[in-house]
This record gives sequence, structure tokens and C-alpha cells, in this order.
Amino acid sequence: MPEPSLPILQNIATDLRIDSVRSTTEAGSGHPTTCLSAADIIAALFFAEMRFDPHDPQHPEADRFVLSKGHAAPILYAAWAAAGAFPRDEVLKLRTLGSDLEGHPTPRLNFVDVATGSLGQGLCAGVGIALNARRIASDYRTYVLLGDGESAEGSVWEAAQVAAFHKLDNLCGITDVNGFGQSRATQWDRDLEEYASRWRAFGWHTVSIDGHDMKQVLAALDEARSITGKPTMIVAKTLKGKGCSIFEGKDHWHGKALKKGAEADAAIAELEAKRIKTQDPAPVIRKPARRTSEGALPDFSAKLPTPAYKIGDSVATREAYGTALAALGGIDRRVVALDSDVGNSTFSERFEKVHPERFYQTFIAEQVMVGAAMGLAARGAIPFPSTFAAFLERACDFIRMAGISNVNVKLAGSHAGVSIGEDGPSQMALEDLAMFRGVPNCTVFYPSDAMSAERIMALAAGTPGLVYVRTSRPKTPVIYGPDEKFAVGGSKTVRKSEKDVATVVAAGVTLTEAVKAADELAARGVGIRVIDLYCVQPIDRDGLIAAGKATGGHLITVEDHYAHGGIGDAVSEAVWDQGFRVQRLAVREIPRSGPPDVLLDKYGISAKAIVAAVLAGQRS
Amino acid sequence: MPEPSLPILQNIATDLRIDSVRSTTEAGSGHPTTCLSAADIIAALFFAEMRFDPHDPQHPEADRFVLSKGHAAPILYAAWAAAGAFPRDEVLKLRTLGSDLEGHPTPRLNFVDVATGSLGQGLCAGVGIALNARRIASDYRTYVLLGDGESAEGSVWEAAQVAAFHKLDNLCGITDVNGFGQSRATQWDRDLEEYASRWRAFGWHTVSIDGHDMKQVLAALDEARSITGKPTMIVAKTLKGKGCSIFEGKDHWHGKALKKGAEADAAIAELEAKRIKTQDPAPVIRKPARRTSEGALPDFSAKLPTPAYKIGDSVATREAYGTALAALGGIDRRVVALDSDVGNSTFSERFEKVHPERFYQTFIAEQVMVGAAMGLAARGAIPFPSTFAAFLERACDFIRMAGISNVNVKLAGSHAGVSIGEDGPSQMALEDLAMFRGVPNCTVFYPSDAMSAERIMALAAGTPGLVYVRTSRPKTPVIYGPDEKFAVGGSKTVRKSEKDVATVVAAGVTLTEAVKAADELAARGVGIRVIDLYCVQPIDRDGLIAAGKATGGHLITVEDHYAHGGIGDAVSEAVWDQGFRVQRLAVREIPRSGPPDVLLDKYGISAKAIVAAVLAGQRS
Repeated sequence: MPEPSLPILQNIATDLRIDSVRSTTEAGSGHPTTCLSAADIIAALFFAEMRFDPHDPQHPEADRFVLSKGHAAPILYAAWAAAGAFPRDEVLKLRTLGSDLEGHPTPRLNFVDVATGSLGQGLCAGVGIALNARRIASDYRTYVLLGDGESAEGSVWEAAQVAAFHKLDNLCGITDVNGFGQSRATQWDRDLEEYASRWRAFGWHTVSIDGHDMKQVLAALDEARSITGKPTMIVAKTLKGKGCSIFEGKDHWHGKALKKGAEADAAIAELEAKRIKTQDPAPVIRKPARRTSEGALPDFSAKLPTPAYKIGDSVATREAYGTALAALGGIDRRVVALDSDVGNSTFSERFEKVHPERFYQTFIAEQVMVGAAMGLAARGAIPFPSTFAAFLERACDFIRMAGISNVNVKLAGSHAGVSIGEDGPSQMALEDLAMFRGVPNCTVFYPSDAMSAERIMALAAGTPGLVYVRTSRPKTPVIYGPDEKFAVGGSKTVRKSEKDVATVVAAGVTLTEAVKAADELAARGVGIRVIDLYCVQPIDRDGLIAAGKATGGHLITVEDHYAHGGIGDAVSEAVWDQGFRVQRLAVREIPRSGPPDVLLDKYGISAKAIVAAVLAGQRS
Repeated sequence: MPEPSLPILQNIATDLRIDSVRSTTEAGSGHPTTCLSAADIIAALFFAEMRFDPHDPQHPEADRFVLSKGHAAPILYAAWAAAGAFPRDEVLKLRTLGSDLEGHPTPRLNFVDVATGSLGQGLCAGVGIALNARRIASDYRTYVLLGDGESAEGSVWEAAQVAAFHKLDNLCGITDVNGFGQSRATQWDRDLEEYASRWRAFGWHTVSIDGHDMKQVLAALDEARSITGKPTMIVAKTLKGKGCSIFEGKDHWHGKALKKGAEADAAIAELEAKRIKTQDPAPVIRKPARRTSEGALPDFSAKLPTPAYKIGDSVATREAYGTALAALGGIDRRVVALDSDVGNSTFSERFEKVHPERFYQTFIAEQVMVGAAMGLAARGAIPFPSTFAAFLERACDFIRMAGISNVNVKLAGSHAGVSIGEDGPSQMALEDLAMFRGVPNCTVFYPSDAMSAERIMALAAGTPGLVYVRTSRPKTPVIYGPDEKFAVGGSKTVRKSEKDVATVVAAGVTLTEAVKAADELAARGVGIRVIDLYCVQPIDRDGLIAAGKATGGHLITVEDHYAHGGIGDAVSEAVWDQGFRVQRLAVREIPRSGPPDVLLDKYGISAKAIVAAVLAGQRS
């Protein structure tokens, strides 16, 4: 198949520019200038470099393109339209409510792997997409287009080092150095060496080019393809707004559409005039050579070996997490794990021991850990990234974007709450439930014993979309037998009598405390219902309402988490229309270092605190 | 004053090692090996390099030391004890509940500026501390000790570029390259050039040394002091556990204390044997040369010029934010602003225009923006970092640590919620209230009109500790006159009748909707109470309870935020013991691009939705 001619590619770039101006002008908003700087690069990628099928964007062996500078969405849409994925004039629906051509790309579009628009995330996803090629032994290549401004994000440099460490020579970044951020010139203007020297220091091969010279763009992509053992960054000098004199190379045009009528018409005419007359044939997009399939997913819950725990054994849920993770990896090769250098604390090291080739170490860099998981998930893997729950907050914005991307990522956070003890507040996750409940499409699990933790891990693997599993540091007693069933949106009633005066809703370490409290109260002749809320989101509204009705409308939630955004708020919202009293026992101040049991007591979430709350409720 | 002799400094390093072993062994946990690799560096810093007063650690002109590798806390405590700040045997209280010598350092100790222990944050704080020296025209120097493992955090490279951009030659980092992370060897082992080349590429001066050769340590610190126009990174090759053969240079000893008795005794004896006999005099710590004071804080609320808005004017709260910020900067020079390249959207550019010397640009790097604000605040500034609220989530873990640090930082997030419109979900903050409410000591404001926004900015400046101000993109009508008073923990009743059937609690753009709904309902003869919850945390519990009691126990919250962790949850928790029904109108799915008004309707938080909820409540 002949290479497309330069004039043809240049004309395509002109078309992409025109469509970027047309669509943003029609929408009355958007970022035309950032599209125009990237037009030649995108034309080269889509019509000379990448192997893909415009009618089957999710082909598992197709080359991938991630638009990290997501505000250039209009040119991404223009490129897919030009490739034939949809009619060209669809781009005029940009940013309208009925269209999936949103202001920034989301996977509502089948040619978008991960949502972008929060800058600095695309290369992290690209790392995961490139790792996935290795996982499925495919030669597909991954291309990521970055803005120069977003290169200031630390996450970009996390991706840089992880890509180099894993020698991802199937990954090619292109930095569009147009010199302008949103509010001003970037710190390095258009000095390509400022960028290239950083990438080289981080172990990448670099090529510096004029991003508007099609021959140089093609040569750089050729060179990148020839490099082995390291990823390549192409650093391209461009002009923001290239091709339209109204804003070409000018500041203060970021995020401004041209006005309909004379202003836009003049710009489009100026672009039209650049069209080169040629008889060269239209380009033919090369499709991937082969197509493999990984088949349907297994029933993880059915296949997970029955854990050998006996009721009364003392096992930390984080340890059960590691055991189940390793077993899940044996059930299906799509299961992969990512670690940021705490695998010996989260117990993900158990996965590494048996599946080292699917265990991806990012070192202490949580953003790329989560971002790479997003990329892996977008390409068919079932990734389990894990670290201390507190340090997942480092990746909060990635988790937010994972929700928007609706990717199949299974996050786990260990060392939740004050029950970690002496390490002190910096290591205690007390906001993680709030963070994950704040992602509307995230399933949130919080097991209390090892048996349920393993069962929940199988649910996590089999439940589509984003899942969070919160585990604890201390050992807790096994309370469930091997035949107990768990479900998304379920709960378990673990203590119950005919005359319960209140319902205590707990999970994790506080369930152990609630059971202790129930025993103490029973000895005093006071009955309470105890609910194990192992699935915090979606929540068992019916079960909670039934329990509340049976126990005088008094629900007491108890959680090793701050009072805000956690179990108390979740329960309260579920039963809002019942007129119940939902009393929250939770941590309400910045905690200190100390022994776990002493801290549970000090912060009012121990058996003692539960007993006191129940008795006070009786007196009032 | 003579330089301390090498043998004396070496003996001090031995003492620090001994105390690190003693304290962690006594605690039964902690990280002795990471202390021992840093002992020579810390001895040199504290006893030969830094000017400070051990009895007045907060001296405004003292050199600063930030222990970014916070798990080395025991040696930090040992150093301050050795300097005379407290009796040496206090270190044996490490990690006990009654002591401030916690597992990782927090500003409960007066010699700690910012809490560390979440890795990769110390250098960001160091940038702010160094910027503050420039602000107060002091020659104090800032030293930050980093671990090699934490250099993988992207935030470190955000700090690197910002420090270089601002030419912070008063900032000196030291990377303790002991070669081991928590679970394994670091990716670059002890290859100093891997580190040095990265720092040089990021514009730093570097010095590579043997971190156990006291002469080299002192010479490197000398060299750093002589460099102008750029910060210096000293890259020090060390051995983890240096000095104790049981763990010196060995993997799998991270975070493990030696056992009391023979194991610890042997290690201490081995260290004791390294003590050098010398008659040299004890070191004298050099104090800062002068002492300046910035005086008491002004009454910002009294001094802020009365805004000229008239009731009915249409002004975005983000714009009022910028106006007030610029005015506050004129009232006191401690007020500073930080931006991550969106000052023309957040309107912080109004501050830049009048106080450019106190406006710190970090470019698109939110972690260092918040981290530097923490450092500035720790040294007396009142920093206002701002960006789109969605992108503050990039700095979630820094905000968590800012809470633990209890620093005087005033964060502002603009473009909250679906009301931003066409840019789509990646730019919409719908979890930010949950994030900030999850910091127990954070005051959370959410103004609805320009008048209250300006008044709230004065409150923010004058309220100690962490504050968050949420602003909106659309213009909203001014509803308050110039005499209206606002207070932390307050609310305003903006609609009220004798026969209100429900209370609608709103803030920001939804307050405008609630007022519209009240008007529509009034036209139908139905009265509702409307509360402007401009302060979401702390919350006006009494006001909400009174309103609920007066309106049939039906509260309807309406917020441009997800249903979780925001206003609904806050109100619900405040009134939990009243048996009220708290109905939450909030966004419950990942939103799309579209016109703001259409989105408010589509996601059920418009006047129409409020009217429907009120009427449905009447029918039920």
C-alpha cells in the first residue's frame, strides 16, 4: 500500500482545521486554537501512521490514540469523521446535549478509551494501554498527544518514569509545543530543548521537529517506531491557531470560538486558500493485521476457591485481599495488579509471586498507578491497583476521571482509619469512603472479615465498572462460614432479637466492635440489631428501612472514617423519607498516634461508645 | 564562631542513630533504618549549617528544615532533642498517645512547619517556605530532606519546576539515596547520576556526594549556599540502616524496629563503639541575626471596602472572589495568591494586576500550588491558591495533609457543578464539597451572590486555619445589600412566610433556583422557607432545626454537587436527632455537555425540580 502523499496529508490537516473552526463557531464555545496547532500531527497519525478500523474503533489490536490535551476535542472528532467513522457534518453538533461530541472527549464515544480534559492524565492512561499490548502479546502501538502546558503536571513525569522503567517502546508521546497555556505563555515558551532534555533525563528517546512540517512529522513517527527498549517523545514546535491570521501565534485566544459570520467565514476562507491542488489518490487507512479475542469473562465467584478460614480465626481483610487477588489472577489472565511500592503491606505481593508478568510496579507514584489501570481496563484487562487507602487520595482526580470514563478498574485501599494505630494521621484514610461515594457509578465494598473479603474480591472482579474495596490493617475475627453469600447492594444482619432497641450499622473493624457491644448489651438485657454494611454503595435501602422500623427508628452508624461522606451519610440518605434518627459515631477530629484499640475508644467508635449510644438512646 | 569539628559532628550523628534505635525499639514500631541513612546529613544541617534557635523554633528568620521523608521522624526528634529543644529521653515517648512525638511529624510540635508522611509533599512546602523568605525579604534558607523512593512522586517534579522557574536559590534539597523503598529496591538503586541528571534537566544545580562522609556533606552545603539564581539538590549516596550490621544496606528492613533486649542492645553497642574520642568543643548553634515581626492581623471584614453591587445586579461569584482578593491584598501584605494558569477564569488575575510580587504562578501543577501555599502559611503568609474546583481534586492528598498541618490556607475553587455547561463533566466539580467537608478542621463557604462572596472572602482571610470558598461560573443576581452580615457557621433565611410547608436549603446557583421556586409556589399559594447555606461547615444546626420545626419537618436540600458528601449530607447530619425528612436534590449521574440551564433541569436541581419536590411532599 503506497504511503499517502504529502499534499494529501496537508489537505487533510486543512480540512481538520476547517472543521475545528466550524464546529466551535457553531457551538459558540470551545478551543479552536489548540486544535489548529495539532492539525498536521493528527493528520499524519490518522492517515499515514496508525493501523485501525474507523468502523471498529475498539478492535483489540488497533493502534491507540489518546488525546491528553482533551480541550482539542473538536479536532479529534474531525479526524474520526474524516476517517469515515461518522458523517462529517456531525461535528456541528459539538457540545449540544443530544450529542456524544462533548466539550472534552469521553468514552461515550466508542473511539475514546479514557475521558480526558483534566490535563496530565493521558500519558498515564497511555502507559496502561501500552502495558496491555504486552499483556496480550500484540504489536499495537499507543500514541498520546500532550499539550506543552500540561507537561507541568507531576502526573506526566510519573508516567515518564514508569514508561521508561517498563521499557515501553510501543509508546509514543507527541508534545504540541505551541507556547501558550490558558492565561499566559508557558514557562518554557517554544524552547524544544527544555522539553526534550527533561524527557531524555527521564529515559526517553526524543525527536525535536517542526510540528507543521509534514515530512518531519512523518519522519519522527518512523524514527519512534524504530526505537527499541525505550519510549519516544516527539517534541513538536507549533503555532497556536496555526493557519488563521486572526489568532495564529497570539496569546489570549485560549478557549475562544470565532464569532459566526464574518469572523469565522474569513478564517475558513483563509484555510481553504491553503488547499493544495493534487491528483494524488486519497489515503487508505491500514487496518490491524489480525484479530484475537479473549472470550467471555468467567464466573469469578463460582471459580474462586472456597477460603479455608474457620469462624473465629483472626485474619486481616488486607491479607484476604492479597490471597483472593492471587487466586483471581489464576482464573483469568485479564486480571492484573498494580502496586506503588507497598505490596508487602497491601498483600498484593501475593499476586506478584504467582503472576509476576501481570504485576506492574509504578513505585511511589499513585497517579500513574491509577491512570495506567484506566488504560489497561480500557483495553480489556481487569486491573486491581492498590495502596494504602490514604494514598489513593493522591489520585483523587484520576478516580474522578475514571468515573467519567466508566472503566473497569478495581481499586483497593488498605490501612483504613485510626485502627492503623501508631503511624499517625498521615497514614490513616478517613475520607476515602467519601471520595469513592462521590463517584456515582462506583461500587464501594468494605468487608469486615476475611471470608467476606475474599467473596467480595470475586464480586469486584465480576462487577462491571469502577469498584472500591476498603481493607483494614488489624486482624479481625472471621464471622462468616463458607456458604454465606454476598451481593452488590447487599448487607448482612449479624445480631438480631425480638426486642431490639436500635440498629447498629457497621463495617470493617467497627463491625467487630458492634458485635462486642451487642454481647455486652445482651448481658444487660438490651437487644440491638447489628448490620454488616459490606456494600456501602449501592446501599441496601430496603434492609436498612426494615431494620429501622423494627428497632424504634433509631439507627446508629459506626465507622472508622470521618463523620462526613461515609457510612453515616450513606445510611441517612437511604432512609431519608422514614423520619428515622440516624446517629453517626465517627471520627470527628484529626487523630493522633496511639495503639489501635485506644484510638477506637478515644475517637468514639469502639464497643464502649456503641454501648453508651444505645443506652443514651433508651434514656432519651 | 569556629566551625564544629568533624569528629564532633560524627559523634552527634552516632548519637542521633542511637536515639533513633532506642526510640523505635521502645515504641515497638517505626522506621529506624531510614533514620540511620540520614544521620550524617541531619547532624551537619542542625549543628554546622542552619541558623536557628532551639528554644524558639518559630523564629521568623530562622532557617527551616522540612523532613519530607516523614517516616524518619525519630531522627528529627532526636536532632531537636540534641539541639536542646527538649530533654533527650523524651524521644522514648515516641508514638505514645500522650506525646506529640507521633509516628510522622505534625505541627503539634512547634519545630514542624507542615505535617509530612504522605511522601512527595515536603519539597512543595519547601517551595512555599522559600517564597515566603522572598516575601519578607529575609535571608533565611530552606532545607528539605527527601527520600529516594519518594522522588517517584510527580509532586516532587512539580516542585522542581516551580522552584527553578522562581529561581529559588534559597532552597536546598537533599536526596537520601539509600537505594531501598518499602517493598523493594528503588528503580534506580544507588545510581546518583539517575537523580542528578533529572534535577539538572529541571533547572537545578546538583552536587553528588557520599552522604556518610561528613566533609563532603559540609562542602555540598557550602556549595549550595554559594549558588545564585537556581535551587540546589544534593544527591547523597547512603546506606539504609548505616552503622548497624543487622540491617545496614539490607532489603526488607523498612519500617521494622529492633526487638528490645539482645537485638537492640547489640545494635546500640555497635553504634557506641563508633564514637570518636575528641577534646574538640561542643558545637554552638548559630541563631538568626535579626528578628522582624509582621504585627497583629488587621480586621479584614472591617477594612474590606463595601462592594458597590446593587440588588439585582448580575455578577458571578468567581468575579467577586477576584475583586475581593485584590482588595484583601491591599489590606495586608501577608495576603498572597497562587494560580495554576487559570487566573483569567478564577479572576485571581485581579490580584496579580495590583500585587504581582505576591502572585505566585505554578503553571498547570495543582499539587505544588497547594503544597507551596501550605509552606507559605506555615511561615506567616495568608495564601489564597485557586483553580477550577474540579482540579483542586488533583491536590486532594495535599488538602488532607493541610488539614493535619492545620495551616492557614484559603483555597478557592471556581466552576463548581453542572452549571458550567458545555465544557462537560471533566471540568465540573461535583465532589469538592465532600472533599473539603472531609477535612474536619476546614471551614467551607459557598456564596450565592457577589455581595456575600466578597464578605465571605474577608471572613476567609480572618478565620484561622483551612478555609474553602466554592464559587460558580454563571452570573447570579445580587440579593444582599451592603449592610448584611455574614459569619462562620451562619446561614440566611431569604424567603419565609407564616405557613411554609417545607424548607429549601440551597447555596450557589441553586439558591437562585430556590428563590425562583419560592416565587412560583407563592403564586400558587404555597409557602416555602428558603435558606442560603453560605457556610456549609461549620453548619447552622440551630437555624436548620428551627426552620425544620416550623415547616413540617420537611427539608429539601438542592445543590449543584453529587448527592454524596455535600449540602444534603451536611444538613442531614446536623438535624439527625429531629426525625426530620431531609430530601436531597442533587446530581446523581455522570453529567454531559449542554447549556447550563438545561443541565440544571436535566439533573433535577432547577426551580422546576424544587417546585415538584415541594408539591409532591404536600401530596404524600
